[in-house]
Amino acid sequence: MKSTTKTLCGLSLLAPLAMAQSAEAKQRPNILFFLVDDFGWTETSLPFGEETYPNNMRFHTPNMERLAKRSVMMTNAYACPVSTPTRTGLMTGMNAAHMGITSFVSLCKDVVPDAIGGHPGSTNENLDDAFAHPEWNHNALCPVAFQNEAEIYGLNHTFYATPLPELLRNAGYHTIHVGKAHWAPVGTPGSNPYTMGFVVNIAGSGNGHPKSYLPEDNFGNLPKQGDYSSVQNMSQYYGTKIHLTEALTRMALRTLEHPIQQNIPFFLYLAHHATHTPVQSDERFIQKYRDAGMDEGMARYASMVEGMDKSLGDVLDFLEEKGIADNTIIIFYSDNGGFSIGNEKGGVPHTQNLPLREGKASVYEGGIRVPLMFCWPGKISADTRINTPVSTEDLFPTLLEMAGVKSYETVQTTDGESLVRLVTAGSKAVKKAMERGEITTQKQANAYVLPESVTGIDPERELVFHYPHQYRYEDQDDIDFLSAIRKGDWKLVYRMHTSELELYNLREDIGERNNVAAKYPQRVASMAKSLGNKLRGWNAPMPTVRATGKKVAMPDEL
Amino acid sequence: MKSTTKTLCGLSLLAPLAMAQSAEAKQRPNILFFLVDDFGWTETSLPFGEETYPNNMRFHTPNMERLAKRSVMMTNAYACPVSTPTRTGLMTGMNAAHMGITSFVSLCKDVVPDAIGGHPGSTNENLDDAFAHPEWNHNALCPVAFQNEAEIYGLNHTFYATPLPELLRNAGYHTIHVGKAHWAPVGTPGSNPYTMGFVVNIAGSGNGHPKSYLPEDNFGNLPKQGDYSSVQNMSQYYGTKIHLTEALTRMALRTLEHPIQQNIPFFLYLAHHATHTPVQSDERFIQKYRDAGMDEGMARYASMVEGMDKSLGDVLDFLEEKGIADNTIIIFYSDNGGFSIGNEKGGVPHTQNLPLREGKASVYEGGIRVPLMFCWPGKISADTRINTPVSTEDLFPTLLEMAGVKSYETVQTTDGESLVRLVTAGSKAVKKAMERGEITTQKQANAYVLPESVTGIDPERELVFHYPHQYRYEDQDDIDFLSAIRKGDWKLVYRMHTSELELYNLREDIGERNNVAAKYPQRVASMAKSLGNKLRGWNAPMPTVRATGKKVAMPDEL
Repeated sequence: MKSTTKTLCGLSLLAPLAMAQSAEAKQRPNILFFLVDDFGWTETSLPFGEETYPNNMRFHTPNMERLAKRSVMMTNAYACPVSTPTRTGLMTGMNAAHMGITSFVSLCKDVVPDAIGGHPGSTNENLDDAFAHPEWNHNALCPVAFQNEAEIYGLNHTFYATPLPELLRNAGYHTIHVGKAHWAPVGTPGSNPYTMGFVVNIAGSGNGHPKSYLPEDNFGNLPKQGDYSSVQNMSQYYGTKIHLTEALTRMALRTLEHPIQQNIPFFLYLAHHATHTPVQSDERFIQKYRDAGMDEGMARYASMVEGMDKSLGDVLDFLEEKGIADNTIIIFYSDNGGFSIGNEKGGVPHTQNLPLREGKASVYEGGIRVPLMFCWPGKISADTRINTPVSTEDLFPTLLEMAGVKSYETVQTTDGESLVRLVTAGSKAVKKAMERGEITTQKQANAYVLPESVTGIDPERELVFHYPHQYRYEDQDDIDFLSAIRKGDWKLVYRMHTSELELYNLREDIGERNNVAAKYPQRVASMAKSLGNKLRGWNAPMPTVRATGKKVAMPDEL
Repeated sequence: MKSTTKTLCGLSLLAPLAMAQSAEAKQRPNILFFLVDDFGWTETSLPFGEETYPNNMRFHTPNMERLAKRSVMMTNAYACPVSTPTRTGLMTGMNAAHMGITSFVSLCKDVVPDAIGGHPGSTNENLDDAFAHPEWNHNALCPVAFQNEAEIYGLNHTFYATPLPELLRNAGYHTIHVGKAHWAPVGTPGSNPYTMGFVVNIAGSGNGHPKSYLPEDNFGNLPKQGDYSSVQNMSQYYGTKIHLTEALTRMALRTLEHPIQQNIPFFLYLAHHATHTPVQSDERFIQKYRDAGMDEGMARYASMVEGMDKSLGDVLDFLEEKGIADNTIIIFYSDNGGFSIGNEKGGVPHTQNLPLREGKASVYEGGIRVPLMFCWPGKISADTRINTPVSTEDLFPTLLEMAGVKSYETVQTTDGESLVRLVTAGSKAVKKAMERGEITTQKQANAYVLPESVTGIDPERELVFHYPHQYRYEDQDDIDFLSAIRKGDWKLVYRMHTSELELYNLREDIGERNNVAAKYPQRVASMAKSLGNKLRGWNAPMPTVRATGKKVAMPDEL
């Protein structure tokens, strides 16, 4: 994949600036990025939708509710369908299709057993009868500072970029990684948070899920059972009663003591493994879900969700106790939608994200629409909702602007836009509309459109989602080989297998049940053209049709 | 074990001091503590003895020689017989017998298979026919800040202390741990470098050796092979050609970039796993040892030694490139003597540390005499030798004084003495003696006694070594159940199994071949009394005689 250089204001970050920036840095806000894994949009008692859905009522997340009172909730926030594209997009500010990182690395062992046994790089599924899987950057992300080292070892199919934590660290931030990294497979520099510019790493590696959340399993480090997914840096909690989510939280708060004591601004990237499979109860919370009559899988899953929520509460308490809550930005996010093709987490497969269609790995809303909140004391109007669609690639420029990093260089061309004006001026505009009585209900809040003149973000801006892969052994029609583009209320889904284009109006049909493509052929053509142009422009990975040896057609070439 | 409170100058380190100290901290020297594992006193081409022994000639350590040109070499430096007592002593400033931490934790699996399978704490050998093993603090060290957490989980047989890195961190140091920790078994807070006050941890845990040094083994993280000794935080190097020693070095230097850029003083504790077993070649260096006709085990071991030495050289190069060599103190040390009871490293068992007697785990010189150098630009006279006996417990107050930390509180009562005056004024006195022509040979240098009036350290000070354990399944007469005390040139060894007291004059008999106890009964009695008093005063662990149910007699009670 080709990289280009971008200088935001013509100044590079030269070494002599570091000292001056360091002095400035002391005035800068702390940033706490709270990232949850495979956590669905409706899997919380905090409803992001225009109404409270039955799914919302199954979960207890009081600390998300508490955070929402201090935050602006983004009701149309997106991520990529799977983990690695979202996580690398956070590091680079780019769309997954543009990076060529469209699937996850270190494939789960039910797809390719022993995929990471002793060799660098990743392997990829190639299981479909009709399509050969695309060439993509299956070694995912490598910080450009490690390009030479990577090339010595023959690393290919890799995207080189200047990662976000490096820019923050250079600006004087104490950058801390806790939890799941998953930017690149083991055996490559990108699997290591220290190469990304993190000053501290707890547990981050190439693994996409923990071998075990349970202390009695030593989090996967039992003799002769360990592998790349065994959780690292957790030896203190082996054999205790402390669930991984709690253990990561304690470690995260511990790492904050030093920068707080020394008055150094911190960037804490607290990336929980929860609520990814394996579904393993958090015993502190499970009983009430069983008592509520949930099936065992759902009770376990709900307890993991509440464990994650407890972590958030502990973080909020800690910031308050330390007296730094008012100078700490909190961003709450999930890396993709809730898992939906099995019943490990209870319920009926393909329904766990209702009213959203499907779940993780799909470009239907269940796979990509995620909770997102910004808590920015003094800068945003709290307890508000913004419905402007935003996505992963926006967070890179947003965080840098929040951190006051005005000049920086990246080797990659970023795709996202800073959301700072959207969440500051936008939330204030919403608050005024609430005070004027224009917004009195959740439904009205979710429907209130903020103009670009106020927010700097065009509400009709196009967002692209691209998953040119097969997810599992078995075909998943609503997941495999799909692309989508959203523009305003409209969403076009391209089903490559069947060469179909579907059109949905998300305002009227959030569940994507009513394909209105036949009714709006011009809109379909126009959106297909936009999607095709984006994918072509990015040289996005596309599968090959086995019968013809040609690449699958772009959506505007059908 | 009982803890007491000690206030060095009546001031506790209050939080408001932190900021002021932080400003001061910028003027402070960096400290790089380079710790090698199981690395014997003669296993280097840099001779610490009064002559160059045949063993010295087998190894190539050009970077130790390079460092020595800038350092003061301590020719009578000691450690404990095994790893955990030395490493915890470094953290606490205490003698092992005083802490009750007299053996190593997470026992190697050939002693107790699956000893750490899923439960906290450690187990211990109890294999001797005559003696039951002593009550000792087999859960080793726990930072006192984590005492509550430890007690919730019922942790017992634990020594609570205020660890060195916490004091340095509180004084504004960026404290970094890389490599082997081994202060406490997995499942306890002390196994985690973050509890000790390290800001950064690479790879440190409860393991006492790496499962593998080899990248093709993923350093022990192959599927279904991993366990507690698999090396953590090394995913980047899986499947490459980079030996663990090199990988740890690269990671260590990477972690220095941030404090150097931000002008924060650092304390880097670079604790190599090398040269502990398993003996696995460093392919960069092995061929010349094979060509020299060494047996394969010795060639492999020598390549690991040279790999460690290369790491030292890379560190020296890095400090010079960054322009901070003149403000960085380097301390080179080994945690105990070279392994001597097997032939994994080639040669003939029990002879690998010649002329020293025996090796690791023994209180004979082969087990406890280790290389120690201080490189302190501008403060010491370089390329000098000091023969004053010093030991592990001295390094805690030494490092704090070097760091300019004048007031601190510890819950433990420290045993060591600061060596700052010894290595500064002492090395200058030695240099003058060299200039006057009083010292012209290695032998003269090793014999030159510095008076307490110059160095602050009594050259007749008593040093105690205590190993009331059985080391392996098989009896090791020169290792198991031994204590020793050194005073000046004299050393008394107490062999508990046979109730014997041996006396050696180390000046004349560094190999401890000529027991002169019968010739000097008064000296034996006096030194036995001193040793007994020390052990009683510390309530040191002692084995129990199975036949009587009573504790083994103290050396002055025979």
